Amino acid sequence: MKYIIGVDGGGTKTKFVLYDVMGIPLKTFQSGSCHLMQVSQNQARLTLYQGVQNLIKDLDISPQDLFISLGLAGYGNQVMKRELELVTASALSPYSYHLVSDAEIALYGALGGQDGIIVIAGTGSIAYAKVGQEILRAGGWGYFFGDEGSSYWIGQHLLELFSQQLDGRLEKTILHDYLWDKFQLNEPLDLIKYSNDHFVGHRSQVAQLAKDAAKLAKEGDPHMQDLFEKAGLELGRLVQALASHFPQGCPVSTVGGLWESKDILRQAFQTSLASKFQLQAPLQAPEYGAYLIAKDLI
Amino acid sequence: MKYIIGVDGGGTKTKFVLYDVMGIPLKTFQSGSCHLMQVSQNQARLTLYQGVQNLIKDLDISPQDLFISLGLAGYGNQVMKRELELVTASALSPYSYHLVSDAEIALYGALGGQDGIIVIAGTGSIAYAKVGQEILRAGGWGYFFGDEGSSYWIGQHLLELFSQQLDGRLEKTILHDYLWDKFQLNEPLDLIKYSNDHFVGHRSQVAQLAKDAAKLAKEGDPHMQDLFEKAGLELGRLVQALASHFPQGCPVSTVGGLWESKDILRQAFQTSLASKFQLQAPLQAPEYGAYLIAKDLI
Repeated sequence: MKYIIGVDGGGTKTKFVLYDVMGIPLKTFQSGSCHLMQVSQNQARLTLYQGVQNLIKDLDISPQDLFISLGLAGYGNQVMKRELELVTASALSPYSYHLVSDAEIALYGALGGQDGIIVIAGTGSIAYAKVGQEILRAGGWGYFFGDEGSSYWIGQHLLELFSQQLDGRLEKTILHDYLWDKFQLNEPLDLIKYSNDHFVGHRSQVAQLAKDAAKLAKEGDPHMQDLFEKAGLELGRLVQALASHFPQGCPVSTVGGLWESKDILRQAFQTSLASKFQLQAPLQAPEYGAYLIAKDLI
Repeated sequence: MKYIIGVDGGGTKTKFVLYDVMGIPLKTFQSGSCHLMQVSQNQARLTLYQGVQNLIKDLDISPQDLFISLGLAGYGNQVMKRELELVTASALSPYSYHLVSDAEIALYGALGGQDGIIVIAGTGSIAYAKVGQEILRAGGWGYFFGDEGSSYWIGQHLLELFSQQLDGRLEKTILHDYLWDKFQLNEPLDLIKYSNDHFVGHRSQVAQLAKDAAKLAKEGDPHMQDLFEKAGLELGRLVQALASHFPQGCPVSTVGGLWESKDILRQAFQTSLASKFQLQAPLQAPEYGAYLIAKDLI
């Protein structure tokens, strides 16, 4: 084996990196999503095929010299899992490959292949632990009754707090005036129609509200500061649920858009962790995690 | 005016009562729902027409001798409000009538026409206050980010707590074994598919889970007892939001299926109220509330 291609297939883009066996990146390529929630099976197949072809076109690589390691979004879903396996098989023949979820390569990448925990917080929330060859998870039950501490969860709680300000259950803060203007309400009950039009069934628009929440927390809104603190503690509970597998502690990495410069969130998260859990920045990108998985296999 | 018909139009049935001017019930009739979420406009029109005809068919009543007072579900919704007004106008011509929401007649009935507050807790939750001629409300923002303390809210929190028991964030109690069997899970992640099939988009099935929660609370499950206590406190906050309109206090009545023999809920609710708010059983049924509203108008 002379080459390994690591593929990180997310909801918005697919990243391909060609490594030599030592993990030195030789060439990268990026294209659109191959997530079956976003594109057809045919499009996904084409994306994977062309991505690999693009990396190897100038190299004289025989099938036995190349191994492809993929982490694809949607692989946690049972139905999509089978479809992704078919898509990958037809796109990558005759090369050898190994397919896991995008979360698994993020886990390997962030921890550099070592045992430990990552806490992913974006639109949803989930934690994964690597314990030897075993992958464990906590959270990730979905927006309907789970994903505590995620952007969606923050957005929904922001709406709840705003409605309570509108009817007098909660004292009004800058949150009230800000959302009143943003939603262009004329009277309190307008919130119901606005919410039906913009938020019910529009998961990403609810998650987008976390940005407003962060802005208001930074400007001193006590309810929003409290909300980010609660989110940080909820994300900390995901680590606690996996802690029994690491009696000596382990490294913990945070992955995902919600962590970016949300100081209150990060601080509450950190204080909720026992001291034996060392918070560390992700060591490597997910596509390098794919390389690491391949390296153990070939 | 010799007769008043009170109509209580709910989500599952429509009740008609013929009163004399003194409020003595002479005759009653019940038929299916006229809620526009459940039936067509034509069906609703027929239901209202036939209900009234049924009550007066053996009486020789001229239009100027009869007044019809209706409280109809869906009247809080702006779109349905206009449709209900059209339906009622065509169904009840040539009689005089007055149309309000089903909640408003419940308010008048429960308090016997006096000023005060009712807290409705069923699938959703909302509180109404009558302050002179003015009707105020708190809560009732809907299942998506409101209806705190309702059956739906309890059902959703039950699922959240169960998922946390499945992944180790919360210690297992009888709730875990009970739902594991009820949902016929083979492994924890089966909950996601079960929930997608049975609960996402099925509002009443989520609310039905409150019955399981009540059973488990009675059997000693600490999380379910805690959940009903929180629900009671949330319902108490609805009263607190309206309290400023009653500096001397006022009677408070509870209406709706969730209140039935949920001791923990009721006790938490009661302790959250200032002593000047006197909890009392509803004095009269909603259809009598409709009569009371009519009596002030004719």
